[in-house]
Amino acid sequence: MDAAQEAHNREAFRQAVVNTLERRLFYIPSFKIYRGVAGLYDYGPPGCAVKANVLASWRQHFVLEENMLEVDCPCVTPEVVLKASGHVDKFTDLMVKDEKTGNCYRADHLLKDFCKEKLEKEPNLSDEKKAEFRHVLAVLDDLSAEELGAKLKEYGIVAPDTKNPLSDPYPFNLMFQTSIGPSGTLPGYMRPETAQGIFVNFKDLYYYNGSKLPFAAAQIGQAFRNEISPRQGLLRVREFTLAEIEHFVDPADKAHPKFSEVAKLEFLMFPREDQVSGRSARRIPIGEAVAQGIVNNETLGYFIGRVYLFLTYLGIDRDRLRFRQHLANEMAHYAADCWDAEIECSYGWIECVGIADRSAYDLRAHTDKSGVPLVAHEKLPEPREVEKLVIAPVKKELGLAFKGNQRMVVEALEAMAEKEALELKATLESKGEAEFHVCTLDRVVTIKSNMVTISKEIKKEHQKVFTPSVIEPSFGIGRIIYCLYEHSFYTRPSKDGDEQLNVFRFPPLVAPIKCTVFPLVQNQQYEEVAKNIARSLTAAGISYKIDITGTSIGKRYARTDELGVPFAITVDSTSSVTVRERDSKQQIRVDVDEVASVIKEVTEGQSTWADALWKYPTLTHPDCS
Amino acid sequence: MDAAQEAHNREAFRQAVVNTLERRLFYIPSFKIYRGVAGLYDYGPPGCAVKANVLASWRQHFVLEENMLEVDCPCVTPEVVLKASGHVDKFTDLMVKDEKTGNCYRADHLLKDFCKEKLEKEPNLSDEKKAEFRHVLAVLDDLSAEELGAKLKEYGIVAPDTKNPLSDPYPFNLMFQTSIGPSGTLPGYMRPETAQGIFVNFKDLYYYNGSKLPFAAAQIGQAFRNEISPRQGLLRVREFTLAEIEHFVDPADKAHPKFSEVAKLEFLMFPREDQVSGRSARRIPIGEAVAQGIVNNETLGYFIGRVYLFLTYLGIDRDRLRFRQHLANEMAHYAADCWDAEIECSYGWIECVGIADRSAYDLRAHTDKSGVPLVAHEKLPEPREVEKLVIAPVKKELGLAFKGNQRMVVEALEAMAEKEALELKATLESKGEAEFHVCTLDRVVTIKSNMVTISKEIKKEHQKVFTPSVIEPSFGIGRIIYCLYEHSFYTRPSKDGDEQLNVFRFPPLVAPIKCTVFPLVQNQQYEEVAKNIARSLTAAGISYKIDITGTSIGKRYARTDELGVPFAITVDSTSSVTVRERDSKQQIRVDVDEVASVIKEVTEGQSTWADALWKYPTLTHPDCS
Repeated sequence: MDAAQEAHNREAFRQAVVNTLERRLFYIPSFKIYRGVAGLYDYGPPGCAVKANVLASWRQHFVLEENMLEVDCPCVTPEVVLKASGHVDKFTDLMVKDEKTGNCYRADHLLKDFCKEKLEKEPNLSDEKKAEFRHVLAVLDDLSAEELGAKLKEYGIVAPDTKNPLSDPYPFNLMFQTSIGPSGTLPGYMRPETAQGIFVNFKDLYYYNGSKLPFAAAQIGQAFRNEISPRQGLLRVREFTLAEIEHFVDPADKAHPKFSEVAKLEFLMFPREDQVSGRSARRIPIGEAVAQGIVNNETLGYFIGRVYLFLTYLGIDRDRLRFRQHLANEMAHYAADCWDAEIECSYGWIECVGIADRSAYDLRAHTDKSGVPLVAHEKLPEPREVEKLVIAPVKKELGLAFKGNQRMVVEALEAMAEKEALELKATLESKGEAEFHVCTLDRVVTIKSNMVTISKEIKKEHQKVFTPSVIEPSFGIGRIIYCLYEHSFYTRPSKDGDEQLNVFRFPPLVAPIKCTVFPLVQNQQYEEVAKNIARSLTAAGISYKIDITGTSIGKRYARTDELGVPFAITVDSTSSVTVRERDSKQQIRVDVDEVASVIKEVTEGQSTWADALWKYPTLTHPDCS
Repeated sequence: MDAAQEAHNREAFRQAVVNTLERRLFYIPSFKIYRGVAGLYDYGPPGCAVKANVLASWRQHFVLEENMLEVDCPCVTPEVVLKASGHVDKFTDLMVKDEKTGNCYRADHLLKDFCKEKLEKEPNLSDEKKAEFRHVLAVLDDLSAEELGAKLKEYGIVAPDTKNPLSDPYPFNLMFQTSIGPSGTLPGYMRPETAQGIFVNFKDLYYYNGSKLPFAAAQIGQAFRNEISPRQGLLRVREFTLAEIEHFVDPADKAHPKFSEVAKLEFLMFPREDQVSGRSARRIPIGEAVAQGIVNNETLGYFIGRVYLFLTYLGIDRDRLRFRQHLANEMAHYAADCWDAEIECSYGWIECVGIADRSAYDLRAHTDKSGVPLVAHEKLPEPREVEKLVIAPVKKELGLAFKGNQRMVVEALEAMAEKEALELKATLESKGEAEFHVCTLDRVVTIKSNMVTISKEIKKEHQKVFTPSVIEPSFGIGRIIYCLYEHSFYTRPSKDGDEQLNVFRFPPLVAPIKCTVFPLVQNQQYEEVAKNIARSLTAAGISYKIDITGTSIGKRYARTDELGVPFAITVDSTSSVTVRERDSKQQIRVDVDEVASVIKEVTEGQSTWADALWKYPTLTHPDCS
């Protein structure tokens, strides 16, 4: 199959999935009656139930299993927090504007589309040109505004909708901005991630955990990104649900006590070296990957393993799931290592979970900005001697020299980092005075050697004080759910072979509705039985749909297969009923009184459908497809 | 006890509750290390768990029980939607500014505080003055900006922080404003309620429900109100979780099939007439309230009953819960009836759930603004003859008169409401022509009698087309949780009587952690047993806390009583353990292998602590308080 045919099939498959999803209200473009807003979607009833099930599984699999500290912080965030985290300055995409209409585009998207189209649609491209376009695609994320602008000019790229010329690229901040309070003086943003809410609470959470490391905090919540041009349906949206874990650990000890529980798991990994040398992803046991140093440490490896278990447990196909390591140029300068769980769908390999060792970056940034030390303490088994830098400003001299500004100068001297202090010491010793910048005064002052003593002293330390490293698994819930839809979707012919019927093969735990209740024919007795069963299902906490319309049973099955309902209860007598499994279409016969508890057991995982087949009489109903 | 003493006790009680809540991280002022932002709070681990439990109970009690259609819509909302709903124009509070500092205050709060202080702190007030201040308090919500301004001036009210003069009151819109997309041309807001997301999806949801009424849709999500001056801790905040139900019903038939299930419930109700005539709330069976016409209809009554069951099931004290009917002046003009579930706490009676029959207002508003008819259809048993207004514009004449604008005039004529059309008809018949306003042209044109015929004709109708009424129970989840904290809190003396210990008597379903696991003394054998029990609890999906510190068992109990943990497992042998219940402090002895399932049963409600006391040997442990 050639590339064009493959692309066509992918497109057709996606259309079939998306049509079913939209028609059955798994999701709906938001505010449709007002012609919608790009990048905003509603989850309708089945989508909402799938999401609730995925989040409940996440809580069970991560929060409860590891005794994580869950928190719930507001979306509205004051500027100071996102200034410290770097989002105000750096959370941008490069944008170009149609110079006539003002339409906005992501500069990298235009360049990417151009190169891909050249490669896909121009068979006679020279090898040289091919290599050039491939190179552009590879370095796309690294291009500066100037470099991107130059490429757009070089290739003569214009606005796709109008063919008008484009502006130079410039950074557009992706946060939704707002103003907190009535005075208009406190700028705020809708959070672009949930993690910052955890970092700013580190001190309280650490105390809550008995001042012990390691521990993890977790948060599920909405995040917001004002995308320049949302596309790819549910994959790139302006508001989405994130589930984030921040696991705090001593940077000197990233071992994990439960690592052995996942060490033998083997799955597709795509280390940095393999990507660079053009090899494919390969199955590596995670234990080996850590032992060989491919994955930086055990805790990171543990979470990679747990993420693998979580995703496959939801129903993600293990052959279309890989863990790809970030290339050196993709990774933030402070990160120790970073792996993305990527899931393959009709849009290609999509990043759905990021698992990063962010070292001490975030806690340090908030420590610096807030002045509140976000650190951990550990009592040393015995006191140790350490060389410590002591900065002792001579307040009298500073007072004489700087009068009312004395306090600011003292504070600035005391706040010097070691390197800066040693440089100042050297200058004072050689020249007797030195220029010194005081941030809070926003000016440079002259410090003389009698104004401060800087020395190294040997001190006894009884405890170690350090900034913990943080290992962050961050889950894009909407992306996981969309990929799950694609991996769960299949079609099969109807009984008469006239049409293809859609099925979602959701595992029971994910399925939006666990079972349906159908009276085989419309009569009062059967409807009464159906309603009694419905009541027992409600009492058991099992979601169900009851359908007492006269539609043929085959049609009713088809309708609910399309919602991924795993079990159908058909009432065809007043004492016992048939239960049909969605994918195998196998049926068993169960007593009316027992059926709710059978459904509860197979959907909640206490037993399996195979157990039920063994325990109850099986049958093929004449009326069922 | 006089009023001042009572106020003092309330304040002291609240301080004790709030101190415990903040110290144990039930909640934390958000962004504390940056000195916080008024009206924004984080839920820490126990608060987060309580919230998750309350929401899970809500889903079970409402969504699952009634087969409601749950949806999940974005918080970011384009202006057009909130223009239609009335929020852009009317969702305001009256604000005054300190004329020198620019500090902002809610005008009604200042007036309210002034009157209350006069009444409370000036014992020698004349009866006349007393009556005046009471009257102001009663009509506070009805005052216009001018009236409020006049009162502030009359009483010489100044800025409370600075004593500076105040500006005149003016409306401040409480929505957080933002801009959607990069162009800056699409204004948006953070939704002030979740309901609009349901209304705009009515058409799809109605179809999803098989085009049948009644049905209910539900949504849980964040809502945002940029309060002028947040106060009262968790009760008036800028971001909060709402759980809203929109039950759509034929306005001609508001009976409810399950009303009989709640009709006998009896609880405190406070009908409009009783409020006006100065009586107190009284216990009325909800069946009677509906029968007597105190509550407008069965569906409204059904939800009032269900809300009562839900709140008391969470642990709200039935004696501090009442349903208060809105006074005529409180209710929106379109509402048929409205009741608030109010819970009494140290701040007074707090509205926690609003249950309103909003008639067809919301669907009509969106129909008008979007042009998409949000209506229901019902096939009539047999066709009926109805008199219908027929408006037939004469396009030829209109074309001659209005040329290019003909289409707009035709559309405006056809869009006339019945009353307007009949007036036009009368004018045309009497005068031969009439002035007519065309919205889309934004001007008045002259219509002559040959340009349109308006007549009433008898037509056969096969189906009824109508806008459903909506009954809306809307839950402020944070307020309910705060009141629950106050209702669950008590203190009792420690064993030695030296101090008062705090306890939250949460029912097991609400409790943030279901049980603790304590080895009685620090030794490896007991710790091993404790860890095995912990593993079985995780497998059973029961949240727990394990404490292997050497702290005395009494202290460990006290620490977890303060989190409202209902059960404590103390490991004092390798074969069996003691289980202690929080409030009674009674203990039973249970085999190690059995203990996880015993805890699961009593926390999930399959059995009770009384059952467990009967089944297992009881004991009093020498070491336990």
